[in-house]
Amino acid sequence: MPGKLVTFGEVMMRLSPPLNYRFVQARELDITYGGGEANVSVSLARLGLPAEHVTVFPDHELGQAAAQHLRQQGVSLAHTVFRGHRLGLYFLESGASVRASHIVYDRADSAFANLQADWFDWETILTGVGWLHWTGITPAISAQAAAATAAAIQAARRLGITVSADVNYRRNLWQYGQRAQDVMPPLVAGCDIVVCAENDAEDLFGIATGPHSNDSFAQMAAQLLDRFPGIKQVITTRRDTLSASHNQLRGLLYDQTGITTETPTYDIVPIVDRIGGGDAFMAGFIYGTHTYATAEEALRCGVAASVLKHSIHGDANLATRSEIEAVMAGDTAGRLLR
Amino acid sequence: MPGKLVTFGEVMMRLSPPLNYRFVQARELDITYGGGEANVSVSLARLGLPAEHVTVFPDHELGQAAAQHLRQQGVSLAHTVFRGHRLGLYFLESGASVRASHIVYDRADSAFANLQADWFDWETILTGVGWLHWTGITPAISAQAAAATAAAIQAARRLGITVSADVNYRRNLWQYGQRAQDVMPPLVAGCDIVVCAENDAEDLFGIATGPHSNDSFAQMAAQLLDRFPGIKQVITTRRDTLSASHNQLRGLLYDQTGITTETPTYDIVPIVDRIGGGDAFMAGFIYGTHTYATAEEALRCGVAASVLKHSIHGDANLATRSEIEAVMAGDTAGRLLR
Amino acid sequence: MPGKLVTFGEVMMRLSPPLNYRFVQARELDITYGGGEANVSVSLARLGLPAEHVTVFPDHELGQAAAQHLRQQGVSLAHTVFRGHRLGLYFLESGASVRASHIVYDRADSAFANLQADWFDWETILTGVGWLHWTGITPAISAQAAAATAAAIQAARRLGITVSADVNYRRNLWQYGQRAQDVMPPLVAGCDIVVCAENDAEDLFGIATGPHSNDSFAQMAAQLLDRFPGIKQVITTRRDTLSASHNQLRGLLYDQTGITTETPTYDIVPIVDRIGGGDAFMAGFIYGTHTYATAEEALRCGVAASVLKHSIHGDANLATRSEIEAVMAGDTAGRLLR
Amino acid sequence: MPGKLVTFGEVMMRLSPPLNYRFVQARELDITYGGGEANVSVSLARLGLPAEHVTVFPDHELGQAAAQHLRQQGVSLAHTVFRGHRLGLYFLESGASVRASHIVYDRADSAFANLQADWFDWETILTGVGWLHWTGITPAISAQAAAATAAAIQAARRLGITVSADVNYRRNLWQYGQRAQDVMPPLVAGCDIVVCAENDAEDLFGIATGPHSNDSFAQMAAQLLDRFPGIKQVITTRRDTLSASHNQLRGLLYDQTGITTETPTYDIVPIVDRIGGGDAFMAGFIYGTHTYATAEEALRCGVAASVLKHSIHGDANLATRSEIEAVMAGDTAGRLLR
Amino acid sequence: MPGKLVTFGEVMMRLSPPLNYRFVQARELDITYGGGEANVSVSLARLGLPAEHVTVFPDHELGQAAAQHLRQQGVSLAHTVFRGHRLGLYFLESGASVRASHIVYDRADSAFANLQADWFDWETILTGVGWLHWTGITPAISAQAAAATAAAIQAARRLGITVSADVNYRRNLWQYGQRAQDVMPPLVAGCDIVVCAENDAEDLFGIATGPHSNDSFAQMAAQLLDRFPGIKQVITTRRDTLSASHNQLRGLLYDQTGITTETPTYDIVPIVDRIGGGDAFMAGFIYGTHTYATAEEALRCGVAASVLKHSIHGDANLATRSEIEAVMAGDTAGRLLR
Amino acid sequence: MPGKLVTFGEVMMRLSPPLNYRFVQARELDITYGGGEANVSVSLARLGLPAEHVTVFPDHELGQAAAQHLRQQGVSLAHTVFRGHRLGLYFLESGASVRASHIVYDRADSAFANLQADWFDWETILTGVGWLHWTGITPAISAQAAAATAAAIQAARRLGITVSADVNYRRNLWQYGQRAQDVMPPLVAGCDIVVCAENDAEDLFGIATGPHSNDSFAQMAAQLLDRFPGIKQVITTRRDTLSASHNQLRGLLYDQTGITTETPTYDIVPIVDRIGGGDAFMAGFIYGTHTYATAEEALRCGVAASVLKHSIHGDANLATRSEIEAVMAGDTAGRLLR
Repeated sequence: MPGKLVTFGEVMMRLSPPLNYRFVQARELDITYGGGEANVSVSLARLGLPAEHVTVFPDHELGQAAAQHLRQQGVSLAHTVFRGHRLGLYFLESGASVRASHIVYDRADSAFANLQADWFDWETILTGVGWLHWTGITPAISAQAAAATAAAIQAARRLGITVSADVNYRRNLWQYGQRAQDVMPPLVAGCDIVVCAENDAEDLFGIATGPHSNDSFAQMAAQLLDRFPGIKQVITTRRDTLSASHNQLRGLLYDQTGITTETPTYDIVPIVDRIGGGDAFMAGFIYGTHTYATAEEALRCGVAASVLKHSIHGDANLATRSEIEAVMAGDTAGRLLR
Repeated sequence: MPGKLVTFGEVMMRLSPPLNYRFVQARELDITYGGGEANVSVSLARLGLPAEHVTVFPDHELGQAAAQHLRQQGVSLAHTVFRGHRLGLYFLESGASVRASHIVYDRADSAFANLQADWFDWETILTGVGWLHWTGITPAISAQAAAATAAAIQAARRLGITVSADVNYRRNLWQYGQRAQDVMPPLVAGCDIVVCAENDAEDLFGIATGPHSNDSFAQMAAQLLDRFPGIKQVITTRRDTLSASHNQLRGLLYDQTGITTETPTYDIVPIVDRIGGGDAFMAGFIYGTHTYATAEEALRCGVAASVLKHSIHGDANLATRSEIEAVMAGDTAGRLLR
Repeated sequence: MPGKLVTFGEVMMRLSPPLNYRFVQARELDITYGGGEANVSVSLARLGLPAEHVTVFPDHELGQAAAQHLRQQGVSLAHTVFRGHRLGLYFLESGASVRASHIVYDRADSAFANLQADWFDWETILTGVGWLHWTGITPAISAQAAAATAAAIQAARRLGITVSADVNYRRNLWQYGQRAQDVMPPLVAGCDIVVCAENDAEDLFGIATGPHSNDSFAQMAAQLLDRFPGIKQVITTRRDTLSASHNQLRGLLYDQTGITTETPTYDIVPIVDRIGGGDAFMAGFIYGTHTYATAEEALRCGVAASVLKHSIHGDANLATRSEIEAVMAGDTAGRLLR
Repeated sequence: MPGKLVTFGEVMMRLSPPLNYRFVQARELDITYGGGEANVSVSLARLGLPAEHVTVFPDHELGQAAAQHLRQQGVSLAHTVFRGHRLGLYFLESGASVRASHIVYDRADSAFANLQADWFDWETILTGVGWLHWTGITPAISAQAAAATAAAIQAARRLGITVSADVNYRRNLWQYGQRAQDVMPPLVAGCDIVVCAENDAEDLFGIATGPHSNDSFAQMAAQLLDRFPGIKQVITTRRDTLSASHNQLRGLLYDQTGITTETPTYDIVPIVDRIGGGDAFMAGFIYGTHTYATAEEALRCGVAASVLKHSIHGDANLATRSEIEAVMAGDTAGRLLR
Repeated sequence: MPGKLVTFGEVMMRLSPPLNYRFVQARELDITYGGGEANVSVSLARLGLPAEHVTVFPDHELGQAAAQHLRQQGVSLAHTVFRGHRLGLYFLESGASVRASHIVYDRADSAFANLQADWFDWETILTGVGWLHWTGITPAISAQAAAATAAAIQAARRLGITVSADVNYRRNLWQYGQRAQDVMPPLVAGCDIVVCAENDAEDLFGIATGPHSNDSFAQMAAQLLDRFPGIKQVITTRRDTLSASHNQLRGLLYDQTGITTETPTYDIVPIVDRIGGGDAFMAGFIYGTHTYATAEEALRCGVAASVLKHSIHGDANLATRSEIEAVMAGDTAGRLLR
Repeated sequence: MPGKLVTFGEVMMRLSPPLNYRFVQARELDITYGGGEANVSVSLARLGLPAEHVTVFPDHELGQAAAQHLRQQGVSLAHTVFRGHRLGLYFLESGASVRASHIVYDRADSAFANLQADWFDWETILTGVGWLHWTGITPAISAQAAAATAAAIQAARRLGITVSADVNYRRNLWQYGQRAQDVMPPLVAGCDIVVCAENDAEDLFGIATGPHSNDSFAQMAAQLLDRFPGIKQVITTRRDTLSASHNQLRGLLYDQTGITTETPTYDIVPIVDRIGGGDAFMAGFIYGTHTYATAEEALRCGVAASVLKHSIHGDANLATRSEIEAVMAGDTAGRLLR
């Protein structure tokens, strides 16, 4: 990659009862940390690419603990700000079989939500950087977070940096008085690559298509490319949820050739931890884009990474290059390595 | 429900090696508490209905600990007696794949087994109560326990309370000198609803039918209704045991219409904890009877509750109303809830 | 006790790294729940007196989990409201030797802080109640919480119920625009018994005395009784902090006789968990007041309870009657009981 | 030692909440196994002497698990019988500071209690054996256990084997209809060495002496030697219980010279696990008797072993020879060994 | 079995992150111990046959800990040598779904690797023994280990003891300057029974056959019997690796009749612990050979044992006789045993 | 600090049974990582100073895990080499009371021991660096490690960087054929500051002084300054080991003024983890040297840091600036911080 990856977004402490225990049974909570953008940086750092995450952590020991989690993976925090009082939290109960996993968010009024956009000098931060990645969660958090996102994208544009986004529309998050439908389009307009499924396209951009199919994806993506001429590739994963313990996954890509590329479908059973599957896909796609010659390979790399993520505890994908390469090559047998 | 549910029976401390460890490997044992009747009270309390469990706990800290387990779920212990020396125990080793789970009981001579029937004034206990539930385990424990069960059923009859029973014949338990075949019939005669499968009907009441099928169930149930005219509904679950980690489950109901009602079959894989599946079915059926218009819905509610129970650690079903409703509505995909 | 105890205040989830691990080392957090007022109810319920805690829990599974924690101890939640979004949290790192324990609060904007005073009908709640206990933390949380506290005290006065308070001035908590110095005096005026040390008396009521001594306590307490004629007893504990693992504790009481009563000094080493030591003292004093003939015994009961609390994990005192009686009788040897 | 050590007695599963948690807080119980006689065999095996324990285990997986615990230490179970249904249990709550540890026994009707005396052919068992050790707990359990103990002692006498006993009078255990005062004297008459303190001598043999002192011990021991001429040495430990976390310990010995030997007093702080301290003393004394020239050294060895035991989890002393030698030599500093 | 089983080989401490955690996530490692030969002894001891393992452990507490692990299963260590400095280690990360398990060996220069062949007097060790089992791992470790293996086989031949071997070629292990292709043939020549698959036969003995099938196995085995006339049976398992969590297994046997015997195929899902599956097969086959009349039953016993092993944590098979018999009889449903 | 700190040395994985369990009782081992030099870097990074550690990690996942441990603390690994096969290990059993802690090293033939001195270009590594710290352990590991240490010191001298060393003579480590007495003097000659106690001075440099006292320290240090004129300060700690749970600590410093500076003595009870106490002292002294005006304050800072370290799990000191400042100011009461 010509230059490193930079991601921008909130990092939360995740608190989960061990195993499949319910919240009402828990006497202890396992800690990990995650955020849709930071997860991408961790993945890439684990794969050996330089990565920096830009965020805000509260100025106390819990903020330090979260920072340590990213630092241990080799993610730089050189421009992260330590200021404010709350670390965003989320509580995760892991389901099994027919019982769904359940998340209770507790992220309101976090140090990140209270950021000031001018804390980040994006020209400096992005100098020498090759890729900027953000998600639709960040502009949903607060007006200042949206402003900082916009500033980052603009700086990236000026500096000629590739920009990707996972549009990831979460209705519940948009609480600060602006509409996603107004905020997101100008941000998306600054992107080269977007992760977007039909429902998000409809909710955010009013692009309605028929029932989910490869065709509906192609129609949606074609309209996105029309509407936002900067976008070069639209990608997504299709997940078939057979149970909380068994999913099937494949990837789709549509680009300016007008052709839809599709990966094989992978069986995932059992699921160790489903959180961060989409971020692993994005990271795998970025890694694949820098490593392989074709978009099809990049897409397959993204899906292989995501499939492996489901076998790993925590939000971030800790799969290795060789594991991803094996799955890309069709080896999903998981044979013991001595 | 017009009035609360009351259940009567022994509560044991359950001690299990963590995960799938064998007894001979265990260095620590996880504690929970359960009993076929108390599990029903806990389920209903969790679903928001008032419930009281009547039992005997030894008058020391282990008895207190067991009581706390029920109290935390909101189950009343207003008429429970703290007296005696032993808390009944059972040790559970959890199997996997082709290896079966294994229970070692250590419940002889418990505080409950040593109860005196006159410790319980059922007229008082059952005043304002809408439903009494008992199982065939209680009269198997001791003559006094059988006498107390009989007294409870008679009081319920006098007060016009619905009575249900899970006949649950456990040959090994009947050690105090009386035969189940003599003790159980008069108790069952006082019931409105019974859980009974063909093998129990044959062992306890001499009602022999052919190989297990919907027909054999209907024949057995028809004879039960004939023999015990007070019984209005006979229900049961059919479990197909593919492995210790994978079962299939459906429910059957026969009532005075002479028609057999059947639910869809549910796949349960993986099984987190199979213990208490039958009690969850009973509790779901009671809840469903009070919530839905038809017996078919009540039965479906019972099976949905039981299927969910298999995904939850411990003897008691901690599934929520909305989870049960989702499974009843056919949603068994376990999609992440944010 | 003629009638039960009622306490009113916030209950937080407490999250602590196991053993003496630091926040930055933690991979899991042990859960317990506590609050200065609820701790008193739990203590009394454990000692066999009827107790109810009135609070607000968020209407989701974490609120349920907190409620279960109180219910298991036999504390009634009959008038507790389930409404709102956040459960107040606090993170506790346990020190050792020269290293101090450290608390990070995360309680702002909790369901309790957002209560409406009119959610609680105190005339109903307090009917048949014998004792109301509150602390200075509750009116510090929000204006509505202060209003609800005032309403509770007034209702208690009207109903002739004994009222006690731990004035417990926490400067950092008073964030909602009113001064403790204005809010607290009318609330304290409605109390029969207050826990108050010299520094709190100076900060809240402007009652300055010399360096801490038995005399300074007596002077302060005498002025309190003067200022608030309803107050009958002022009590406090003196803690000598030798290290995070070794404290010494004794109690002081001043009443309308004008005489200061003092307990022996107890050595506490090692300290298992210091949190809730003051609440254990208050609960022990309430229990002692109902159990013993003299204020000196009640005070000794309070200190014995507090000393024992330091040997017990969690916020609430789970010492038994016989343990408290043994310490009151001078037996601090902790001999093995078979 | 000319020949190995044989011990005879019940082995129980011990179940303890982790750390200093109370029974009512426990969600899991740590398992170990112990018994006053088996603890001596484990100690000696750990110190390199051949040892066999004779007992009865129930014929199921829990009995196997208990047997494995002894086998791993190198203790032979060549004559142990696997028969019966219950493994004796005891529950241990560990105190701290002023809070006492607490044991709840659950050993009635165990496989051992139900033994038949003729299951053990003592002539065979004791052939080639050098030392037989028993305690007053075994004859307290059942008439058959007492009979088996008597048979063992008689066989040992015939074979010229040294016999030792810890008289250990536990009033609560004697439930089977015979009095300790009748059963114990003929058993003690067959012993060479007894552990006995003044209170046991008074309760069992009616030997009353004044307040505890070195003199009272000497008077008691002199009368014991008078009454039971076979006894050659009477030993005991003196424990000063400063708190549940801090004890002081020393040893006393009286023999046919009429002189009382005394060890230095050792400070034990903190106490990791106090259970089995007396058994460690006995084992250390037996080991010392075989290793050192003088009774004073044997006594010092016993006390050093016991002091070390208090720093080790579980019932049995896992201290090594070199650790015991260091403490005997006065090195109690516990300096890091690299 | 006429006489006991003796196995010879290294025992390593195995260190694994709990659950499915990755090495880079681990904060603690679960300990067990295993080695391809010792696993066979443990299995047989668990099944009630006398077994001794001969090995070298370092002369410190870690060596003692490893020895305890074998002793607790009832495996004799009567001729094991405690000498040297290092205990061989291996680190195991458990995969799931498409992610493979991963082993990092750290066994170089262990106490066992540094053994001197003359430490073992095989004539003495093997007197009264009925069966000697070794694997191709032992002669791969060091020249002295190979020499000791050869000496053991020669002594067994002289004493008329059955000898079995799992040829188990691990290319990476052969580091001491001799070629497996030179060392192994004379050792295998001394065997009655060998576990050997086509790839090992090709690598070690240059016996090439076509793609894996029942036929290729028969061709290979026929050539083995030709080359090594002492060999009476060649056995192997066929594993179909669907994923790290789901395998299928069956067994094959070829003997001097020239007929290939085959077992049914068993589904194993989920896999609790795959390590030691081959050793469990060997142990089951040895047990079966002594218990059943036919080679087909012995083979089925081996496969049933191996299938059960996959449901058990640790290297060694702790399945019971009745569990193996049930699977052999076709009962793979894992029904709860009360 | 003008420029960052660089440390050079091996980092080992440390494996410890939880709590005070013995090796022979352990079923799991807690992991941390440490090394006498890396511990200093971690301490300084935690205190906010830039730090880099230079080492060799094996090129596999265990090496990555060790690297992550340092990275999370913010220690740079920019010049660390990933190459070789073994991660050095040490096993730690934690004592208590009279029972000593015990370390079993397993570090021979590690990736670090096999380093080539020319892997490190010290001119580059030390450019812009302000301080180089090494210990006597590194040159003890291998000739190449000694050569690399010498090269680092020479480069530091050329670049005018402050050099400190903890001479730390470990007799057992010197196994590669050279004598510490020959290797160490030229290395120490390149230092500005050394940690050295009388026994090390005698063993390494033949400087014999009388029994340990402030005078003996001054005599030894004076001779050191004489012999190595580059040395400006000699420092050490005095530890009084009352038990494995209770130590006392103070610091001594001798410099070119010829005056001995001494700190107060601190009581440490209980000791949570004693390992790394000396490294914490060194780190505190380096930090103090850069922060405070006087050597006395720097020394006090070192001792305060070391005292706090004893309350923290793991090899490295995670005490904060404010905690160290509090202890330096005499506040050792460990009062709860809210």
